[in-house]
Amino acid sequence: MTVDVPKELPMVKLEYVVAELERVRAKKVLVQAPQGLKGVALQLSEELSRRGFDVMISGGPCWGGCDLALNEAAAVSADAIVHLGHTKFVKQSTIPTIYLECRYEHNVDVEQLVMKSVHLLRPAKKIGLGMTLQWLNLLERVKQALENHGFSVLYGQHENGRLYPSQVIGCDYTTIKSVESKVEKFLIVGSFFHGLGLSMITDRCVVVADPETMHVEDMTQITRKVLMQRYAQIYAFRNSRRVGVILCTKPGQKREGLAASIVSALRKAGKDAYVLVLNEVDERFLPDEVFDAYVNTACPRISIDDHAKFKKPILLPSELMVALNLSSWEELIYSYEYFRWCMRND
Amino acid sequence: MTVDVPKELPMVKLEYVVAELERVRAKKVLVQAPQGLKGVALQLSEELSRRGFDVMISGGPCWGGCDLALNEAAAVSADAIVHLGHTKFVKQSTIPTIYLECRYEHNVDVEQLVMKSVHLLRPAKKIGLGMTLQWLNLLERVKQALENHGFSVLYGQHENGRLYPSQVIGCDYTTIKSVESKVEKFLIVGSFFHGLGLSMITDRCVVVADPETMHVEDMTQITRKVLMQRYAQIYAFRNSRRVGVILCTKPGQKREGLAASIVSALRKAGKDAYVLVLNEVDERFLPDEVFDAYVNTACPRISIDDHAKFKKPILLPSELMVALNLSSWEELIYSYEYFRWCMRND
Repeated sequence: MTVDVPKELPMVKLEYVVAELERVRAKKVLVQAPQGLKGVALQLSEELSRRGFDVMISGGPCWGGCDLALNEAAAVSADAIVHLGHTKFVKQSTIPTIYLECRYEHNVDVEQLVMKSVHLLRPAKKIGLGMTLQWLNLLERVKQALENHGFSVLYGQHENGRLYPSQVIGCDYTTIKSVESKVEKFLIVGSFFHGLGLSMITDRCVVVADPETMHVEDMTQITRKVLMQRYAQIYAFRNSRRVGVILCTKPGQKREGLAASIVSALRKAGKDAYVLVLNEVDERFLPDEVFDAYVNTACPRISIDDHAKFKKPILLPSELMVALNLSSWEELIYSYEYFRWCMRND
Repeated sequence: MTVDVPKELPMVKLEYVVAELERVRAKKVLVQAPQGLKGVALQLSEELSRRGFDVMISGGPCWGGCDLALNEAAAVSADAIVHLGHTKFVKQSTIPTIYLECRYEHNVDVEQLVMKSVHLLRPAKKIGLGMTLQWLNLLERVKQALENHGFSVLYGQHENGRLYPSQVIGCDYTTIKSVESKVEKFLIVGSFFHGLGLSMITDRCVVVADPETMHVEDMTQITRKVLMQRYAQIYAFRNSRRVGVILCTKPGQKREGLAASIVSALRKAGKDAYVLVLNEVDERFLPDEVFDAYVNTACPRISIDDHAKFKKPILLPSELMVALNLSSWEELIYSYEYFRWCMRND
């Protein structure tokens, strides 16, 4: 099933983009969007082109607000980037960037979605609610529907306001973690991907309700399995001699200081370690005949969600601390520490 | 079978690299190598690190001298790049770059390799000889062995000296094409990949002899098949409405002027056309639900060698001219024009 993205680009959004581009005096514009919104990117490009802008579309993947096409824009000397589908993640001032949120505006049967979630949420009464950006328009309706079933519902603020109230992204669950102590279970309105991310860093049960597929799932079992896989990688990592420390050049995933300190820690632990600089962390190109294992300072979800693609262990910085006996697995799992290092960008 | 790359990095090369790095006063160094030389890259990194340089390894793929890691080097503020395995391709002055050729130095049974080629080269008497960089040390021995079998052997110079005499790369066969009128057949010492490239742009028979696998092959049949596949893509392209014109950000594959003129030509021909800016042309991320076809101004070999991976036609600029009836297929095939546009870099 594909999502019914609005067929027409709303004129109000187009006018906003045009006004912003005129404000920053942009002529040459790079439009960037994640895979699911490439069609909207094309629509927007057509409209902007018709209005006299020199428009190019970013053709590469776009994994989040962290994956801002600054390098591409610089390569073609674009005056501005229009970035679709994510909120601002990267602090940068080199190229003016206009963020255009794309919330799904077709009708979602919220009552049915909540109804399907109810038996997974009970017997809990206090629910923490998290949402991904594209469903945020449903927030009050979901909250109301849950309350109609007798639940009390909380959602939090992001600690520095970068995300909307209740909003979650793949590596940042700050908003919803902030109400953890007051709730018994969590409900994520979004995808399996976001449900799993939260579930790894909380000991509360997480239920995910996906308005796209209308699928509802309790993440407890799958999370245990994923954490066992992670522990197996940590265990396997201990036998490695040569370690590649992955440093990503994507603006919001570049953590050079972290990579350097990991190289130091590995060398201190008697391993050979080198920084591997790359843009896309692609399993096809990691030199597995050279390295026995990797530490991934880029997007944490590459290790979590794609681990089966990699032939060698590919640990997160937090997991490395366990591998080097600098912290304990029991302390790490279900804790905020698992992804906290992602908050560090150079 | 894997190639027996020299286990030890020759000290003379190490001293050369160190001297060059000192000459340009580099402290922070990015070492880049294609997949097969990542082990040598690691050895070099270890040695440079031991001598006090701050070393990082480029972890991304490296498809040729065109694929110079300028973006990665800039992202980590490297003072210099050491690029292994290719000759200089990109004119650039932003970051000092030291090119380190890596020729295979283990014993190749040249006599046996030539012996296996002889029956495919006969009854021709005059042979044009081409080689890839890593086998160039074999040039005189191969020439002599062919002469011992009664052939006369020619190899040419590159028109502006960018390549060694007889050297071929995946998109540039200028050296060997320069002797075409004087020879009956060609012998490429290198891989299937290079044999195919030459064979597409010459009506002479091409034989490839691969010292790595000791495999010898006449490229005539496979080339006909590949050209038929190319024509099928040209034919399918004609029905497309929305075309993505791929503009690559790799320093030696960026052809912005060419991409812009292709967009104009396509629009004049009544099609919707947009420039798609990306670094790796990865079939997994091209938005096939948005575009009906692509024109690829990046590496030509992506279209030729990987066409089966793409769901939609992905033409080269020269092939587009045929699709738009601006030149004929008969004129294009077996001609220098097929890849000539690649000589244009911004």
